Amino acid sequence: MTAAKRLLVINPNTSKEMTAVIEASVTHSIGLFGGVVEATTVCADQGVASVEGSFDEVVSAYWTVDKVMSMLDDYDGVLVACFSDHASVKALREATHKPVMHIMEAAVLQSLPLGAKFSIVTDSNHWKPLLEEGVQAILGSMERCASVRSSDMTALDTVTLSKEQVLEKLLKASQLAVDQDGAEVILLGCAGMSQMNVAIEQSLGVPVIDAVSAGVLAMVTLLLSNLRTSPLGMYTPLPARPDEVSVPNAGISKAYGRPSK
Amino acid sequence: MTAAKRLLVINPNTSKEMTAVIEASVTHSIGLFGGVVEATTVCADQGVASVEGSFDEVVSAYWTVDKVMSMLDDYDGVLVACFSDHASVKALREATHKPVMHIMEAAVLQSLPLGAKFSIVTDSNHWKPLLEEGVQAILGSMERCASVRSSDMTALDTVTLSKEQVLEKLLKASQLAVDQDGAEVILLGCAGMSQMNVAIEQSLGVPVIDAVSAGVLAMVTLLLSNLRTSPLGMYTPLPARPDEVSVPNAGISKAYGRPSK
Amino acid sequence: MTAAKRLLVINPNTSKEMTAVIEASVTHSIGLFGGVVEATTVCADQGVASVEGSFDEVVSAYWTVDKVMSMLDDYDGVLVACFSDHASVKALREATHKPVMHIMEAAVLQSLPLGAKFSIVTDSNHWKPLLEEGVQAILGSMERCASVRSSDMTALDTVTLSKEQVLEKLLKASQLAVDQDGAEVILLGCAGMSQMNVAIEQSLGVPVIDAVSAGVLAMVTLLLSNLRTSPLGMYTPLPARPDEVSVPNAGISKAYGRPSK
Amino acid sequence: MTAAKRLLVINPNTSKEMTAVIEASVTHSIGLFGGVVEATTVCADQGVASVEGSFDEVVSAYWTVDKVMSMLDDYDGVLVACFSDHASVKALREATHKPVMHIMEAAVLQSLPLGAKFSIVTDSNHWKPLLEEGVQAILGSMERCASVRSSDMTALDTVTLSKEQVLEKLLKASQLAVDQDGAEVILLGCAGMSQMNVAIEQSLGVPVIDAVSAGVLAMVTLLLSNLRTSPLGMYTPLPARPDEVSVPNAGISKAYGRPSK
Amino acid sequence: MTAAKRLLVINPNTSKEMTAVIEASVTHSIGLFGGVVEATTVCADQGVASVEGSFDEVVSAYWTVDKVMSMLDDYDGVLVACFSDHASVKALREATHKPVMHIMEAAVLQSLPLGAKFSIVTDSNHWKPLLEEGVQAILGSMERCASVRSSDMTALDTVTLSKEQVLEKLLKASQLAVDQDGAEVILLGCAGMSQMNVAIEQSLGVPVIDAVSAGVLAMVTLLLSNLRTSPLGMYTPLPARPDEVSVPNAGISKAYGRPSK
Amino acid sequence: MTAAKRLLVINPNTSKEMTAVIEASVTHSIGLFGGVVEATTVCADQGVASVEGSFDEVVSAYWTVDKVMSMLDDYDGVLVACFSDHASVKALREATHKPVMHIMEAAVLQSLPLGAKFSIVTDSNHWKPLLEEGVQAILGSMERCASVRSSDMTALDTVTLSKEQVLEKLLKASQLAVDQDGAEVILLGCAGMSQMNVAIEQSLGVPVIDAVSAGVLAMVTLLLSNLRTSPLGMYTPLPARPDEVSVPNAGISKAYGRPSK
Repeated sequence: MTAAKRLLVINPNTSKEMTAVIEASVTHSIGLFGGVVEATTVCADQGVASVEGSFDEVVSAYWTVDKVMSMLDDYDGVLVACFSDHASVKALREATHKPVMHIMEAAVLQSLPLGAKFSIVTDSNHWKPLLEEGVQAILGSMERCASVRSSDMTALDTVTLSKEQVLEKLLKASQLAVDQDGAEVILLGCAGMSQMNVAIEQSLGVPVIDAVSAGVLAMVTLLLSNLRTSPLGMYTPLPARPDEVSVPNAGISKAYGRPSK
Repeated sequence: MTAAKRLLVINPNTSKEMTAVIEASVTHSIGLFGGVVEATTVCADQGVASVEGSFDEVVSAYWTVDKVMSMLDDYDGVLVACFSDHASVKALREATHKPVMHIMEAAVLQSLPLGAKFSIVTDSNHWKPLLEEGVQAILGSMERCASVRSSDMTALDTVTLSKEQVLEKLLKASQLAVDQDGAEVILLGCAGMSQMNVAIEQSLGVPVIDAVSAGVLAMVTLLLSNLRTSPLGMYTPLPARPDEVSVPNAGISKAYGRPSK
Repeated sequence: MTAAKRLLVINPNTSKEMTAVIEASVTHSIGLFGGVVEATTVCADQGVASVEGSFDEVVSAYWTVDKVMSMLDDYDGVLVACFSDHASVKALREATHKPVMHIMEAAVLQSLPLGAKFSIVTDSNHWKPLLEEGVQAILGSMERCASVRSSDMTALDTVTLSKEQVLEKLLKASQLAVDQDGAEVILLGCAGMSQMNVAIEQSLGVPVIDAVSAGVLAMVTLLLSNLRTSPLGMYTPLPARPDEVSVPNAGISKAYGRPSK
Repeated sequence: MTAAKRLLVINPNTSKEMTAVIEASVTHSIGLFGGVVEATTVCADQGVASVEGSFDEVVSAYWTVDKVMSMLDDYDGVLVACFSDHASVKALREATHKPVMHIMEAAVLQSLPLGAKFSIVTDSNHWKPLLEEGVQAILGSMERCASVRSSDMTALDTVTLSKEQVLEKLLKASQLAVDQDGAEVILLGCAGMSQMNVAIEQSLGVPVIDAVSAGVLAMVTLLLSNLRTSPLGMYTPLPARPDEVSVPNAGISKAYGRPSK
Repeated sequence: MTAAKRLLVINPNTSKEMTAVIEASVTHSIGLFGGVVEATTVCADQGVASVEGSFDEVVSAYWTVDKVMSMLDDYDGVLVACFSDHASVKALREATHKPVMHIMEAAVLQSLPLGAKFSIVTDSNHWKPLLEEGVQAILGSMERCASVRSSDMTALDTVTLSKEQVLEKLLKASQLAVDQDGAEVILLGCAGMSQMNVAIEQSLGVPVIDAVSAGVLAMVTLLLSNLRTSPLGMYTPLPARPDEVSVPNAGISKAYGRPSK
Repeated sequence: MTAAKRLLVINPNTSKEMTAVIEASVTHSIGLFGGVVEATTVCADQGVASVEGSFDEVVSAYWTVDKVMSMLDDYDGVLVACFSDHASVKALREATHKPVMHIMEAAVLQSLPLGAKFSIVTDSNHWKPLLEEGVQAILGSMERCASVRSSDMTALDTVTLSKEQVLEKLLKASQLAVDQDGAEVILLGCAGMSQMNVAIEQSLGVPVIDAVSAGVLAMVTLLLSNLRTSPLGMYTPLPARPDEVSVPNAGISKAYGRPSK
């Protein structure tokens, strides 16, 4: 009997509320598979309380990579629970051949078989161009994306406002995406919106994607397939460079002494 | 205790050899999940022995839809085991809200997290423009696709030539895709190539996707997520039109008496 | 003196009303050339009364191919009178080197010299993503297409509602395309709308394309030029496979015994 | 009995040899229609002996517009016989609602129904980026274009070298387009190559487009359809501005006194 | 001590008012560099009083090239002060290796580091498709362009209406671009709008680009870098062809006797 | 008399050799302007000795932002001297309205007026997909980019190998870009290649861009124009969040206490 695969889920900010929301969705999703994969959810040790833009992402990516590098030996794959094209994912794919995804990529891919056009309901207008760039990176174009719509919140609001307030904002933005942009599927574009998909789906009558759940499911399929990140091109492993390290953090220093994949 | 979900896998041609190859891959992949989903593999009752182009696909799509419509009540989702943008999938998505995919879509989506550029190794040059059009439909662009490469076979050759001959042709085309086109991941572009991925992966050192396996895994995640095809836009359900039927096949006639989703 | 070229026009559904509308437009258009080309208009023997989506198209394509294959020896080219990227056209281009088009392709190409942006006025929202995909296939991008606009009808409505009702719906959608989407040219996106172009053109003051007429004119130019479908790539002729036939229809069976082009 | 429509074909340079080649192709093509359209072929009165690049095109466009404006009242439409996105066409579409095309647009559009990918065989490498830009303007993308290939000539060489020399150069470039670029159809990318298509088609076995012939046929279909250039957007007619004229040429001055369309 | 570089700025129409507006902006911008580059502003000797579309551009390009060719020996680079993809620029890049730009290209490039999406506020709807085509040519896509917005003027209006009237029209269009199209940066799309950027920037709070100033600054950087137009591909210098000249204008005739670059 | 504007140039790694190469190019370029702008060149205090991929970039971006934030009050703009779409730039554009660029963006923009197609000569194959993604982000497409070519070095090699060795590798890759990919302009894709452009330009005869110089020139034009980063959309300033800081670095902590722009 083979041991269960182990998935590491990391919330790339330091918010305990957000981590709890993510962990609840992870627990639910991993439970669907009856134990063939196990999951652990952690958050970054330092950095930002939420990722509200590119400045925060630079800080978040650094501490996310640091945290993951210190735990990576004990896991078979990593899910970064941030709905953005989070820079830690590319970095980690160079550092390990174990599969690594973020929840934005998983959510986009899960939506494609369900309708011709998807819309992302994100927190604020600040994220609109950033997520459009993310879709472009993931699919190579914006053709399948009907729109990115703001719900006029901060990322942190998604876990600090009342659930009713958040749902109302999400419903309003989702409805506009369906009515005005031609969305056939809705993606909830923040980890903090996890497990709100059912209520919105019932109200709108279109499929709604929970990105954390999509991430867990996509990672399970990669782990069970024994698929690894390609060593060519984009994710070429960096050679070990132990003498050059001038990085004071445990996990990142460790990476710099890493052997070639 | 909930009953296991049931997946219907259909080989859209009438070849028993091809069906056997597909069934072996399905059995292996569904087994990874320890029984949470069950799968049945069938083939079309009539039509073509293999799908070698667009003419065959018209015939194949008709008989595939006919077969699936006659069995659909007993299943929770459908996987069409043809590596093409097989027309039966769009048709079935109108006929049912249960999730439906073909293995080309699943293979493309599975490859994206593993490298920046994938190549498809297909049977013949005839398929190159057809599969390029398929990638365009699935992702909305060709940006992520390094190339579609012919391995100079017919689809039927993949199950009638010796395994060594087929492997040699696939390896040659895959190596060219890596060396000349910048492929970081290889997709085996025919159901008949199932389970040859391991040998090629070991030889080339890059991830190689078994499309049937990718299809089973993607369908399992959709079934466990309870996701349904969107009723808006592209897959709007057609209204029942019992009086207009002039179609002499059991399954298709049934569809024309179908209620709205 | 050379004999006149013979064009076969096929309505891919079984509606007699629609066939009559198409035939009237064909007769008018072919008459412009003073007899250098002759045209015959038929409809499918079996299948669907109208093509309202992808399910219908699978059925329609099968019976269209069947009908055309049984008549092809007596004609120099084929026009499929369905405003969609109808799958029968690709199939037939593999089966014969004689030129084959559908009226959507002809209408799009005819509009390009008349303005920078065209809009398609189609029947229902169901067709919007399907026709967008069709434009993508025909031109390789959506850049020249301002929009696809629904006129809130079924395809069958175009020949069963009163002409006034249909015109009113078409005018409303066309006006919106001009005012809100920047359309400079309008395409009537259904065979059933044939010969309504003049009334809309007079009302709106922009060029309006009758797709059936565009199809006849484009086919005439191909026939008079003696141009044939390329035998390379997309439309590679399939080899004869008489022993594998398991198709019970006359025309399609015939195709399977066909010699290489 | 209605009078025949009259087509004006203009060679936008001053070469008598090139004009003769164009006229021969026009005469052949217009003859296919048995007299329903008549054509006259002229060349620019001043300017350049051949259009070898963008500098020449600025000069050529000016004198082409000048010539056409002085003759336009007597014709129903205009074909500019230059295989480039010749600037005179856009200018003339503002000056008249009568249809105007250049032969590049006609050739590209004629090729689309015959294969998935076309290549243009042009004179020199100088034209490669210019014609790629032209395809982008005509179709909105380069997706359908396999390549633009130089045949290592000047435009003038096409009518001053021996026919054998020209054919040899065209055949070599066409063969490379088929073998290395995946071309399924070849476009002869210079008016001076007219009527060489048959020899190349016989040698290569793929369709070869004579751009002048394509231009005549496309113009005939526009003339017989009574289609006019859209007055909105790109080709909005300019208001008459008689007092501002500081242009010493007959035709162009006339344009500045033109009434609104 | 090296002599200052000399920049020739040409207004491609004959309007003295427009030339004065351009010259004021040039003088201001060149003054920022403390004398390292000197600039001279001229206008075309003949042609059109303003460039209101493609017909005017054909006339304008001819006389612009004529004027520049007669003065080119005394300058190190040329700026064409027309906010369009003015055909004279491509022509001049073939005629000289000295750098040549138009102000549209400069304005687009200057805006890119300042925000993710820019909008162009142009004169009239006629320019919308023309400037969209220009952006496509400059950047290779429209992805960075939020919109092209008309301000309901002619080009000539920008220098003949009162400054208040022009500002009001520009502000209204700019505000719509920001509010409805997602513009983060505004480009004033006409030379006649020069130096109105400050007022609009103060009112809207987003960066506003003065295209003439952008042009001067971009040309200064090219001149100081000693960069020259590439002699390969698009701007291949044309060979001297003195015997073929049939062009009666001083500057253009001179070009035809020019030596190879 | 106004004081000179002050430009901060930061080498985002810790290599003193690379910093010296960058500083030499900065000194040369800033000198062209006769003192209207002053420049200071620094490097990151901690992090990586060179940026060889995405992992390094995460580390480099963090320490680059940290360093710049601690110095920003004394400067009018920032140039990040890394030839990649370095994440620090987006972050800094949120943190300040002062203009910020990286040298890749500047080099790409400087090349556009000089030829239709540019190629980037980068260090290694690892960078090819990363820089292609960068071009996509900067221009919105890859249309203007002929290719990204590896010169088979690490980034550090560019300043540790002999100048002859580096030049030979760059020349070889550049020549292939011109001959096989159609490059008309070459971009040297690493800060360590600064000032090698002249030798390559003389050998190849095409314009070669020094990215550091391009960066200095572009920044000078932004500084002299008083242009600021847009506060809308992509670079929306983040609100001050002093209480949430869990970042132990001086400059980054400072950012978290920053006032709104």
